[in-house]
Amino acid sequence: MTTSEFDQIFQRVCNWGKWGSDDQLGTLNYIRPAQVRAAAALVRSGRSVSLALPINKVAGPDNPRPAFHYMVQTYDSPSSPEEPHFALDYLACEFHGDCHTHIDALCHIAYRGKLYNGRPTSIVTSKGATSMDITAYAHGIVGRGVLLDIPRLRGVHWLEPGEAVSREELEAAEKAQGVRLGEGDILVFRTGHHRRRLELGPWNNGYDGDGKAGLHSDAMVMLHERKVAAFLPDGDGETVPSNVEGVAYPIHALQICAMGMAASDSLQLEELVKVCEQEHRWEFMLVAAPLRLPGGTGSLFNPIAIF
Amino acid sequence: MTTSEFDQIFQRVCNWGKWGSDDQLGTLNYIRPAQVRAAAALVRSGRSVSLALPINKVAGPDNPRPAFHYMVQTYDSPSSPEEPHFALDYLACEFHGDCHTHIDALCHIAYRGKLYNGRPTSIVTSKGATSMDITAYAHGIVGRGVLLDIPRLRGVHWLEPGEAVSREELEAAEKAQGVRLGEGDILVFRTGHHRRRLELGPWNNGYDGDGKAGLHSDAMVMLHERKVAAFLPDGDGETVPSNVEGVAYPIHALQICAMGMAASDSLQLEELVKVCEQEHRWEFMLVAAPLRLPGGTGSLFNPIAIF
Amino acid sequence: MTTSEFDQIFQRVCNWGKWGSDDQLGTLNYIRPAQVRAAAALVRSGRSVSLALPINKVAGPDNPRPAFHYMVQTYDSPSSPEEPHFALDYLACEFHGDCHTHIDALCHIAYRGKLYNGRPTSIVTSKGATSMDITAYAHGIVGRGVLLDIPRLRGVHWLEPGEAVSREELEAAEKAQGVRLGEGDILVFRTGHHRRRLELGPWNNGYDGDGKAGLHSDAMVMLHERKVAAFLPDGDGETVPSNVEGVAYPIHALQICAMGMAASDSLQLEELVKVCEQEHRWEFMLVAAPLRLPGGTGSLFNPIAIF
Amino acid sequence: MTTSEFDQIFQRVCNWGKWGSDDQLGTLNYIRPAQVRAAAALVRSGRSVSLALPINKVAGPDNPRPAFHYMVQTYDSPSSPEEPHFALDYLACEFHGDCHTHIDALCHIAYRGKLYNGRPTSIVTSKGATSMDITAYAHGIVGRGVLLDIPRLRGVHWLEPGEAVSREELEAAEKAQGVRLGEGDILVFRTGHHRRRLELGPWNNGYDGDGKAGLHSDAMVMLHERKVAAFLPDGDGETVPSNVEGVAYPIHALQICAMGMAASDSLQLEELVKVCEQEHRWEFMLVAAPLRLPGGTGSLFNPIAIF
Repeated sequence: MTTSEFDQIFQRVCNWGKWGSDDQLGTLNYIRPAQVRAAAALVRSGRSVSLALPINKVAGPDNPRPAFHYMVQTYDSPSSPEEPHFALDYLACEFHGDCHTHIDALCHIAYRGKLYNGRPTSIVTSKGATSMDITAYAHGIVGRGVLLDIPRLRGVHWLEPGEAVSREELEAAEKAQGVRLGEGDILVFRTGHHRRRLELGPWNNGYDGDGKAGLHSDAMVMLHERKVAAFLPDGDGETVPSNVEGVAYPIHALQICAMGMAASDSLQLEELVKVCEQEHRWEFMLVAAPLRLPGGTGSLFNPIAIF
Repeated sequence: MTTSEFDQIFQRVCNWGKWGSDDQLGTLNYIRPAQVRAAAALVRSGRSVSLALPINKVAGPDNPRPAFHYMVQTYDSPSSPEEPHFALDYLACEFHGDCHTHIDALCHIAYRGKLYNGRPTSIVTSKGATSMDITAYAHGIVGRGVLLDIPRLRGVHWLEPGEAVSREELEAAEKAQGVRLGEGDILVFRTGHHRRRLELGPWNNGYDGDGKAGLHSDAMVMLHERKVAAFLPDGDGETVPSNVEGVAYPIHALQICAMGMAASDSLQLEELVKVCEQEHRWEFMLVAAPLRLPGGTGSLFNPIAIF
Repeated sequence: MTTSEFDQIFQRVCNWGKWGSDDQLGTLNYIRPAQVRAAAALVRSGRSVSLALPINKVAGPDNPRPAFHYMVQTYDSPSSPEEPHFALDYLACEFHGDCHTHIDALCHIAYRGKLYNGRPTSIVTSKGATSMDITAYAHGIVGRGVLLDIPRLRGVHWLEPGEAVSREELEAAEKAQGVRLGEGDILVFRTGHHRRRLELGPWNNGYDGDGKAGLHSDAMVMLHERKVAAFLPDGDGETVPSNVEGVAYPIHALQICAMGMAASDSLQLEELVKVCEQEHRWEFMLVAAPLRLPGGTGSLFNPIAIF
Repeated sequence: MTTSEFDQIFQRVCNWGKWGSDDQLGTLNYIRPAQVRAAAALVRSGRSVSLALPINKVAGPDNPRPAFHYMVQTYDSPSSPEEPHFALDYLACEFHGDCHTHIDALCHIAYRGKLYNGRPTSIVTSKGATSMDITAYAHGIVGRGVLLDIPRLRGVHWLEPGEAVSREELEAAEKAQGVRLGEGDILVFRTGHHRRRLELGPWNNGYDGDGKAGLHSDAMVMLHERKVAAFLPDGDGETVPSNVEGVAYPIHALQICAMGMAASDSLQLEELVKVCEQEHRWEFMLVAAPLRLPGGTGSLFNPIAIF
């Protein structure tokens, strides 16, 4: 795809101005009371399952910035002689990494010098974002989650790095699984990235490495038309290397910058897919809440699917 | 209360062995499919509200360990010449502090050298906890939340530091609000701590300061009898100074160490209480998930109430 | 002093262009081989003494950003079963604080939108400084240190907050102590700040607090004329509140921005002053080296005086 | 070498009790006034040179725990509207890594459950070391540094991983360079580790990787007999893999645990060796000071050689 074709798609899916010039929610505006009620109505067995990876403290080819986790105090050294005693710890993380399950704020990405809704990059300073930060999602993302499981459709364990999933294939997955993405839905998208990682070990999935599986840019047009509220993939949604000339992260540019769609990275869907198979359904209530970090461009989080 | 009277209460509410010697869930075992279904059935208006404080980055009398939040990269310095560009940040926190909304793991507290279920303190090492860490709650806490609003009962804006809420008062609040705590419920407990803080400014609420409002130890007997699954207060549940001789944190000792009850600290309930008043009800679906931190003795989190 | 009078002093002491447009060393250019030899010739008794504070891990009125120090591993949890075993730790610090002995880089301060040597503020980005960072001092500051002890001159234990030391008083201290600052010397300047802190406890010494003792702006003219290479005070050199209209940190503006003079903050001179008295001299060899932090605007450091 | 032969060497070089049961300085006790004066007398040309690596912020095969360096504030976001403005930053590091030039405290290593001087491992808790921490070196290490350059002796660019330098070879280097290590000297030991790294790129030099060049255990006997005060190598002194059965880090065990000798890791000697060649001498004044970190098991530092 040429840059010019990409820019046409960018214009086509662009939601700038749609919810006002000061909009903080983007496509989360699609989630209305009826959708939340419908999502809650999906709760039958009461099982819940995490879509997050364990926080990864070990450097590796896909984890150049491991999290730091230290004990502040163990029971070898109580802070007071009185009962009871406490163990305390500390966590530090550059969370926008390939091994950290996180959600992005709408200020996280600029394409051609503009953020979502045409906002200038100057709203992000060395002190954090002054608008469109992660606290816009403070009250959580609550809605119907729909898992589209591409390896299941293809009859493989996982997609290989560089493989791209087109709009047609998303539609085929919908049919195969008997679901259909609608307004305000949350798309949970599985390429099998973490199953591959568990079985073959970590690899450098970036541009300077071996890449990863993700979406075709045209699939974003479908998400736009369907009015999907959020997109939660097990990689980061990108096909690497990019098949758009001059654009390294076309899915991020479309999803966050053009559409204002809630975006996450690096979900772990291996537990979810097992529960879906046991429950014989690919839809569930989904509740995800970022930490309430003022000025943050994203947050670690732990999305929960409830069946 | 004497230490010996306290120890009798400790024995009375003690759940050690109840769910097996390797139990990781404690009173979350009380939440069963029927309770989750019933909680989801409470979703009508679709409103959701956060029970968390903004992450606090400024030192103060109740925040000796402020969080660190830095930008890793803003738009003044893209990591690559290619489009799009990204803003990135970093968060670090000693999260077991009075200003950080967090959840405790069952390994967080030892009373007389024993952790919950009689486990030894040696399961917590300088590398983290090897059992009963916060990942025991990885799949989230999902159930019926019930807000008991003591300032409302008393007709005041907030409880003053040092004031203790007894079992009788909890029962009176139930009656006044038309709710009753039952098996597997999540008690959200409001003293008005944060309303006081917002209006009067922060204060040192610790033992070396001016204290805080919380529970009487006898209230924990009620929570035990009712089989409450989790206790989420707006302070930390403790009355400071303690009214138990020789025990600085009696509520923590009973709740976590004796009962194995999921515990959080420093919720912000001012938004919740407004929604409850508007919705004319004090029960809601509650979904809370810690970060999935292996070895962690707790986690920052953002609990969400859904109406 | 009016802003306009201040700006005249700024012009008078301005070294921009003096050592070339790409100068990284500022007044450290004054230290030449002869000065280093002369400094080394001062070593007679072989005693050495630190001019640094212990790293401060506890929040307080003058330490809103305490350092974080954690054990990565103690002997309760060796990383390998083999001998020997290791204890490991971690240190994190926002080091430009009033309680952290540190050195500033020449990029640390802008006055009216310009850094030292007229360089633009854009050389400091979210990724760090691209020029005039602390690595300019990587090979250390080695020279003759001269302690001017103002409390000794005045016959007091310490200067009170808000008291300013004039050029005349510096000259009087020289005479009283029998020393004279010359080209390439390092001025170690004592107000007794930390003695006051040790005896009366910490106080908020900033603009929103009770202030601190420091220099008059005219004293910087003397340092300029004498070609002093570095200025190491026990506070940060500033008199707070400032006696310059519209300029909050006049000493920093003159010292770093106008003069390009190596600057440090928050030295601890109580051990040094005792050794000086025992040795009956106020000059010594001084060796100080920042950490070699690329892009850093400063560094923690531990300056050493050798007698 | 068998474990039993190693234990005989351990006994032979053991300094436990030599300087009292509460000794904090170990072999730094060998440095007396005469040695400091003699070291200062070596200062002739006035050149100074750093022996430290730049702080390394990028993960790699020998840097699994890169340092974190962030801007707290750049000029895009001043904290106050008043002049002047400031740039601020933050540094965090697990400094005991192969890519971080650091010094170890005497509490850093246990062999067979004992620290230097027979002290128990319990002096190191989750709150840090209560004795023999890095503040024992707070007033700096000041003395005569002697560089022994083994690649120069062998006529090679660097030693290859796994190559060990014996006592005989150290003595041969002394003769070739015309120096002799004596009481209170600081041995700076070059294998060319960082030249190899600069030319061939980083490699995993640990036990799970390709190893590194270092000393034979018998060389430590020589350092003991000569009463060397400190040992500063460009690797960490160890030959990896170890040639001692059952002991992974024999040099550390002998140097720190048995001898109480000041130890550093990961010096960068490529600048030093050039200056030595230009100055035609391999001895110099050396001044090195750790950060004054209470409880620390070591510290980042920047040792300075002065010619």
